[in-house]
Amino acid sequence: VVDLSSQYGKKLKISVFGQSHSAAIGVNIEGLPAGIKLDMDDLRAFLRRRAPGQSELSTARAEDDAPEILCGLVNGVTCGAPLTVIIRNTNALPADYEKIRDIPRPSHADYAAHLKYGGHQDVAGGGHFSGRLTAPLCVAGGICLQILRGHGVDICAHILRIGSAGDQAFDPVGVSAGDFGAIRGNPLPVIRKEAGEAMRLEILDAKEKGDSVGGVVECALIGLPAGLGNPMFDGIENRIAGIMFGIPAVKGIEFGSGFKGSERRGSENNDAIYIEDNEIRTRTNNSGGILGGITNGMPILFRTAFKPTPSIGVEQESVSLSRKENVTLQVKGRHDPCIVPRAVPCVEAAAAIALYDAYLDK
Amino acid sequence: VVDLSSQYGKKLKISVFGQSHSAAIGVNIEGLPAGIKLDMDDLRAFLRRRAPGQSELSTARAEDDAPEILCGLVNGVTCGAPLTVIIRNTNALPADYEKIRDIPRPSHADYAAHLKYGGHQDVAGGGHFSGRLTAPLCVAGGICLQILRGHGVDICAHILRIGSAGDQAFDPVGVSAGDFGAIRGNPLPVIRKEAGEAMRLEILDAKEKGDSVGGVVECALIGLPAGLGNPMFDGIENRIAGIMFGIPAVKGIEFGSGFKGSERRGSENNDAIYIEDNEIRTRTNNSGGILGGITNGMPILFRTAFKPTPSIGVEQESVSLSRKENVTLQVKGRHDPCIVPRAVPCVEAAAAIALYDAYLDK
Amino acid sequence: VVDLSSQYGKKLKISVFGQSHSAAIGVNIEGLPAGIKLDMDDLRAFLRRRAPGQSELSTARAEDDAPEILCGLVNGVTCGAPLTVIIRNTNALPADYEKIRDIPRPSHADYAAHLKYGGHQDVAGGGHFSGRLTAPLCVAGGICLQILRGHGVDICAHILRIGSAGDQAFDPVGVSAGDFGAIRGNPLPVIRKEAGEAMRLEILDAKEKGDSVGGVVECALIGLPAGLGNPMFDGIENRIAGIMFGIPAVKGIEFGSGFKGSERRGSENNDAIYIEDNEIRTRTNNSGGILGGITNGMPILFRTAFKPTPSIGVEQESVSLSRKENVTLQVKGRHDPCIVPRAVPCVEAAAAIALYDAYLDK
Amino acid sequence: VVDLSSQYGKKLKISVFGQSHSAAIGVNIEGLPAGIKLDMDDLRAFLRRRAPGQSELSTARAEDDAPEILCGLVNGVTCGAPLTVIIRNTNALPADYEKIRDIPRPSHADYAAHLKYGGHQDVAGGGHFSGRLTAPLCVAGGICLQILRGHGVDICAHILRIGSAGDQAFDPVGVSAGDFGAIRGNPLPVIRKEAGEAMRLEILDAKEKGDSVGGVVECALIGLPAGLGNPMFDGIENRIAGIMFGIPAVKGIEFGSGFKGSERRGSENNDAIYIEDNEIRTRTNNSGGILGGITNGMPILFRTAFKPTPSIGVEQESVSLSRKENVTLQVKGRHDPCIVPRAVPCVEAAAAIALYDAYLDK
Repeated sequence: VVDLSSQYGKKLKISVFGQSHSAAIGVNIEGLPAGIKLDMDDLRAFLRRRAPGQSELSTARAEDDAPEILCGLVNGVTCGAPLTVIIRNTNALPADYEKIRDIPRPSHADYAAHLKYGGHQDVAGGGHFSGRLTAPLCVAGGICLQILRGHGVDICAHILRIGSAGDQAFDPVGVSAGDFGAIRGNPLPVIRKEAGEAMRLEILDAKEKGDSVGGVVECALIGLPAGLGNPMFDGIENRIAGIMFGIPAVKGIEFGSGFKGSERRGSENNDAIYIEDNEIRTRTNNSGGILGGITNGMPILFRTAFKPTPSIGVEQESVSLSRKENVTLQVKGRHDPCIVPRAVPCVEAAAAIALYDAYLDK
Repeated sequence: VVDLSSQYGKKLKISVFGQSHSAAIGVNIEGLPAGIKLDMDDLRAFLRRRAPGQSELSTARAEDDAPEILCGLVNGVTCGAPLTVIIRNTNALPADYEKIRDIPRPSHADYAAHLKYGGHQDVAGGGHFSGRLTAPLCVAGGICLQILRGHGVDICAHILRIGSAGDQAFDPVGVSAGDFGAIRGNPLPVIRKEAGEAMRLEILDAKEKGDSVGGVVECALIGLPAGLGNPMFDGIENRIAGIMFGIPAVKGIEFGSGFKGSERRGSENNDAIYIEDNEIRTRTNNSGGILGGITNGMPILFRTAFKPTPSIGVEQESVSLSRKENVTLQVKGRHDPCIVPRAVPCVEAAAAIALYDAYLDK
Repeated sequence: VVDLSSQYGKKLKISVFGQSHSAAIGVNIEGLPAGIKLDMDDLRAFLRRRAPGQSELSTARAEDDAPEILCGLVNGVTCGAPLTVIIRNTNALPADYEKIRDIPRPSHADYAAHLKYGGHQDVAGGGHFSGRLTAPLCVAGGICLQILRGHGVDICAHILRIGSAGDQAFDPVGVSAGDFGAIRGNPLPVIRKEAGEAMRLEILDAKEKGDSVGGVVECALIGLPAGLGNPMFDGIENRIAGIMFGIPAVKGIEFGSGFKGSERRGSENNDAIYIEDNEIRTRTNNSGGILGGITNGMPILFRTAFKPTPSIGVEQESVSLSRKENVTLQVKGRHDPCIVPRAVPCVEAAAAIALYDAYLDK
Repeated sequence: VVDLSSQYGKKLKISVFGQSHSAAIGVNIEGLPAGIKLDMDDLRAFLRRRAPGQSELSTARAEDDAPEILCGLVNGVTCGAPLTVIIRNTNALPADYEKIRDIPRPSHADYAAHLKYGGHQDVAGGGHFSGRLTAPLCVAGGICLQILRGHGVDICAHILRIGSAGDQAFDPVGVSAGDFGAIRGNPLPVIRKEAGEAMRLEILDAKEKGDSVGGVVECALIGLPAGLGNPMFDGIENRIAGIMFGIPAVKGIEFGSGFKGSERRGSENNDAIYIEDNEIRTRTNNSGGILGGITNGMPILFRTAFKPTPSIGVEQESVSLSRKENVTLQVKGRHDPCIVPRAVPCVEAAAAIALYDAYLDK
């Protein structure tokens, strides 16, 4: 369902635009049905979950991130025309980043972008590659999530692991809206509160050392009808993976029992089918709710791996592109020691976009 | 880059068609540059690597799988028009499968397809969901691989693990064409021959018990230019994931250090950049050759998780859709106890398609 | 809705493949709903309407044009998988065309294709640019037409003019299935039989002189629901135009009052709206059933201009590409003096594809 | 090359957004190469050509139409990220239009939109169907035109006819940049100044009567390389038609000799090929520079028919959707008696987008 680089979707086309320090960032959403009332307070609350500057765990860059709707709504109701939302960049400090033009940061997109755009890429704050672009993604996803909820679908992600501190996993069969509420009530989005405390310590330890740490986000979708998605290259797994790798720092994804399941025998991994009260379900859910690319009515479950933020205060090796020589680099500026907590709503947003698109495409 | 369900690609459009037991299966490839001479012997040799019926490790269904080119070539050279290749289904036994229409097989697409197509899906051999459809995928991929080789690119996959029997991983920095040659010379495509022997025993053990076993395939691409791919939703990771989940039984994918990398600190996982002999490289390759969705000139590395084949001889729970009651099911017929060995060329083919498409799109 | 060059459609993806003298030509149709019974006799009858070699008015190339279905049907019913149909090229005489590689025919695609494909294009019979490729278009269109009829839609085209011999136009408001039946009963598809006789003489006169003649085809679609299509670039006009210019020799298209309407005042050209028996209609239909890109429930009406076939027996100026000098050329071989009569079912087929795609996309 | 309704393009993706009276309208352009310096003064000058309120011939709605660039530029140079430009709607008077919700205007999109969007469409000023949306189209087109000029391509349109007042046509073979300059120097964009005067009188006569009048715009593109475009559904004709029907009021398009050519014999209409000074050209250009969908190096020539603006002061028949009864309607508010003069830059803009997209796609 991918098209051009900053666009996603088939029935619903999301076009994300902006750079970390451009006048504004935003998203154009085409294909929303007409007649849907949007709850802007709910959307702003969703956006606050990924906003920076909220705690000791994230970057000090404070952005108000107030979404401004340019078009597509009439009296708060979708009118069938494209919905465009922008967020002004108010707290930009481009000067921080000039050095990057010459000395690419290890494990950042700097060098690859330099090659691709012939040196014309916007280097300030990572330009179009910045994690800041997940704000408009969350605008689009927050809207899709609202609408999906109106259809009885709910989506929730939690931090499964940060560094070595792990939370328990969702119950693949019984995961419910009650679980979601509990997660959202915790300071960090986790199932077991104690897991969150261990994660906090892991992040603060990394922060203190000028280092960063990665993690894994697990996401569940419940209430989706069976029969969504298509075979082969347009399955729900392809679609979800296609959008998740659009979130910076994602380096892996697995559905259901995933890599673990690949170690098993079929007799262990197969999900036995049964009928009860006229409803067909499976006793286990190693398939993560998707078979042959199509939803089977069980919860959809997947996990995404986030690499540790590459921006660290520790001195690193790099090169000067202009002088063609080896140098050392120490990245300064405001950075998240761990983007995983703020990535949780991004994963939910991306999942909401992918599934609402699939929902409209049925 | 996904479009409709059985199509893939942006500059190169691959349309796979056919069902397991239809008159023919095939692929239509649009977008191949004109003037490329294809080596049909090389293509047939590539296809033989995924062909069934070759050893004690795979299904007894013997298919000649001779590709017939319908159009797109003039005197063996591409002419710019779509290239269509078909493979006749000669060894079909549709009668084997009639029961599946009523009793879906656990962890197969049967039930999801039943819902999606309202009972009109072709159930014989899994219809369009069959692993047999990877034959035309290999036709398209084998052609792309030939062409990429002409541009100095090579692709090789090996079995990293089957059940609990593991091979060593590729050297992320130093992987070379020499490694590829050694892998292709082994009875099973592995780096360490002994690993292959342990895998063989694991598969035979599963086979003997009427069971199946899953595994992981690791793939490396070398020689690709830096600067391929696009930011956000059209990155190389999105594109590769978008096609890999089109291979039946794939449930996970990770690039570079992937899930393992998410446990690390940035200072461990970042790939230090250096210059030597005027070439910019990285000391490690935890990024798997891709940053910000764009190739950085290092080898591309990824791993895909294959669930154990759901078709097993062991008795399983299922339901009768017509009678709406719980039943037991024992799948008969010819099945692979482990599709991982035959999946290796499929992963290479899919990677070749994804990367040649990206190559043409630069 | 256009994608790659030989593909058309959004919900329904038509991929046409083949060259005039390749082993086969065909079409892959993805997106057909499952559960539709196809009437192959009806399809073959539709194909015979465009088949060559039927009268003194068309080329002597006789092709059986028997469609062979490779996949996508189970017991004559669509199964949701792509439907692929091929037609073998049995009457190919490639030797006729070798000279064209060096000396492009005036007003043919020869020279443009030579530049585009660097001399590797298939020159035999025009290769992929041949009118022969309208056979698979008619396969796809004939199938769409069958299905649309099941939804109460009918499509009919007639020859409005050949050279200077003109038929009367459809009644834009009252055109009905009865008109369609009468047209199909005539030797040439016209409203007034006498007009057909004048056209026949015009064609025979051109034929006798080794010349060719162009014409205009008018097409009407009735029974379509109001509200199909989308604003701006995805309107019904964009979609119909997008497929019609895929038929060789089409050089113009107009909807409703078209070019004539552009000479008028708004007070003359506007279609007054009224309600009768609870149905909203317009008194005139200068809009051709489409406003803002969206159907309004009135008949859809459009006309396409076909240039005279460029292949003529008369001596013409051209150049030798190899010798870079001016030469004269006399095209031999079997050619239609007028392709307009055979273009009529092609226009119907293309309209059926465009509208069924729009119908599925609502 | 059409995708979703308000998007156009293949390598270059144009997404137009906004409604006539929303907070802003705008365009998102993805796919612009990095490193191109844009001339904003040139762009503003181009936009002024379509701006309303400039003379007695157009609507009194004065819009400043100052384009604001949100992202995609760094120091005036494209950076490879999407370029988004908005125009604030400053002169909106939504109250004028409330009545339209119940009583659709004849030959407007009102009724079709009502059906499509279930009454939720933005009726103010025609909403997303408004001619105002051609302002962002001109932003995108003005940028493409600038870039094409840097590659030696020029585009110019003129009014060929308004009502019964006609200009002479372009010389299909010899049209040159000199002709373009002369046209742009006239009060109305015409070749013969006197033709412009007759057109002015025709428009004023219509205006005086509260009526409107249609016309034809002819457009020429020179300097394009041969070999652009693709066969079948992705030809230059398909692409140009696909975008032109996105301009409100366009009801027909023809290339080269078009409908006129369809009356001719092949011997008259074929374009003889010759070589001179090592350059291959044709003696006539009835093909309009396009053969088999591909440019042949001759000027591209096409004509588009614009219906008379449906908004007229004359009393018309319509219906009340709520009361389901026949009523009369007199459209008030500020309207163009003839949109053809302002449509001229829109046609140029749309042609520039289509051809620059094709240029990037070669």
